Amino acid sequence: MENKPYVIGLDLGGTNSVFGIVDAEGHVVASTSIRTKGQNDLELYMDSACAALAPMIEQVGGTGNIKGMGIGAPNGNYYTGNIELAPNLPWKGVVPFAKKFNERLGIPVVLTNDANAAAIGEMTFGVAKGMKNFIMITLGTGVGSGIVINGELVYGCDGFAGELGHVIVDRGPEARLCGCGRKGCLETYCSATGVARTARQFLTQRTDESELRSIPLDDITSKDVSIAAEHGDKLARDVYQFTGELLGRSCANFTAFCSPEAYVFFGGLTKAGNLLMDPLKQAYDENVQNIFKGKAKMLVSQLDDAQAAVLGAAALAWQMQ
Amino acid sequence: MENKPYVIGLDLGGTNSVFGIVDAEGHVVASTSIRTKGQNDLELYMDSACAALAPMIEQVGGTGNIKGMGIGAPNGNYYTGNIELAPNLPWKGVVPFAKKFNERLGIPVVLTNDANAAAIGEMTFGVAKGMKNFIMITLGTGVGSGIVINGELVYGCDGFAGELGHVIVDRGPEARLCGCGRKGCLETYCSATGVARTARQFLTQRTDESELRSIPLDDITSKDVSIAAEHGDKLARDVYQFTGELLGRSCANFTAFCSPEAYVFFGGLTKAGNLLMDPLKQAYDENVQNIFKGKAKMLVSQLDDAQAAVLGAAALAWQMQ
Repeated sequence: MENKPYVIGLDLGGTNSVFGIVDAEGHVVASTSIRTKGQNDLELYMDSACAALAPMIEQVGGTGNIKGMGIGAPNGNYYTGNIELAPNLPWKGVVPFAKKFNERLGIPVVLTNDANAAAIGEMTFGVAKGMKNFIMITLGTGVGSGIVINGELVYGCDGFAGELGHVIVDRGPEARLCGCGRKGCLETYCSATGVARTARQFLTQRTDESELRSIPLDDITSKDVSIAAEHGDKLARDVYQFTGELLGRSCANFTAFCSPEAYVFFGGLTKAGNLLMDPLKQAYDENVQNIFKGKAKMLVSQLDDAQAAVLGAAALAWQMQ
Repeated sequence: MENKPYVIGLDLGGTNSVFGIVDAEGHVVASTSIRTKGQNDLELYMDSACAALAPMIEQVGGTGNIKGMGIGAPNGNYYTGNIELAPNLPWKGVVPFAKKFNERLGIPVVLTNDANAAAIGEMTFGVAKGMKNFIMITLGTGVGSGIVINGELVYGCDGFAGELGHVIVDRGPEARLCGCGRKGCLETYCSATGVARTARQFLTQRTDESELRSIPLDDITSKDVSIAAEHGDKLARDVYQFTGELLGRSCANFTAFCSPEAYVFFGGLTKAGNLLMDPLKQAYDENVQNIFKGKAKMLVSQLDDAQAAVLGAAALAWQMQ
């Protein structure tokens, strides 16, 4: 087997595309980014991407030194290399994204969704190093997940498995409407937007004082809740208590599926630290089946926020056979 | 590799132990059974088992013609070969069951829980032949499951993964108490005992006529409900409607995990046929995320009831490397 020292990682976001050249130890030796948003013409986007990559590739001695490229993209399908019907990207329909880069760069290209890439990143460079069975949960604007079983990412029959953010956790009359068109998905509670919704709900239902009452209800963000909670605001802390409990109970159900060695949490919400993790762990312990008690570790990603997504995409390329 | 023509399968039940000698096509060429219940002395049980097996082994030309033995047992741990804390077996604590047979017979022995064995049986000899991603759900006294991902059974970090009967599906105040000590597990609704509980609940809550009202409430079994439903009894049919709906909604959530190619249902409850499967399929379609709609097949096992468990255990032995 050839022993090429670098891969390219691409974290494709709705706003920006971040590229990194990464070595086998997870050092980002060069990086750059271009705008995704507004680049409606895919070929023009590809021109910009390749122009941005060219000097970095040159810097490491050309594509002869690059094993391949890994891409983490919303609605990315590992089996096909396509991005399919991504609502937050400028290209409509089914886009043969991996193929485009393969044609332009002449190196192997592999693609998966962003949460799966994050899981591979943790397994390769992060807290899940060496683990064969774990669940990655990304707590950002939405809730994403990547599931590793027997050392392999779970893609399912169609390449779209691992959508734990869309497990329905509330079937009651008040269940929240989700972006997916259904009601009560985990994502509507345990994401940044979910935290803001919970805060609005508590502010409406309750009458106690809170510094959040100084903000117009519709403008409240998870950032505001987090700041108030840091100040000791009771209502804001209760929002995290509620969020952590629901996430912990949900994980207890996920464990019945694959009995993971660990859960790895990543994303903005984890910044709340113990405010989120304490109720999460407690609810998990209280709700998990006896046979599984005390087994799964509850870990928070230690990867650098700015680099984690690129490292995940790069790890995907390192994993290629 | 040696090409031995037979394996031994053992379906270890709380009442009886059924042994079969099975060829690679799934033909049971010889079978016998001994009593499990009351055999509190494990060594005496092993004596009986080996005495029962001896003439069958002789019949196929001795252990030289037998590749190995597979055992499907409640609370069986694939990783250790132990049966651990099985409430319905006569032996307490952790029993090195696979090791015992290995020592007595001098052939490799592998063991897993009964639902996992059923999944391997379907994958080897049944409707899941050739599938790499499916979920087996056994609907008996309890609800068991075996999950196959990338062509492999999911055992998790401890050998106990795949406990979908203990996913909590109801967190309301009326959630049913489960044998596992928690409340609201799928098993308390979608098993034979769950069907009987639902019938009792409906008979108590409702006032409409039903032939089930002629049976003392505490004596009603799922068999009674099934007979009444066959007669067209509205309340009994509603019990299956309720059961199928809940199971279908639950499967819709399971799909978010591993996007299986199919669900395979097995066990007494499937005898209700369309009374169960129609609401199950409808609730699944209505509740599954759009991206997964129309993908997973809903199949009922076609294996012979009396042989299925032994075939599953035998398939486990055929799968041994």
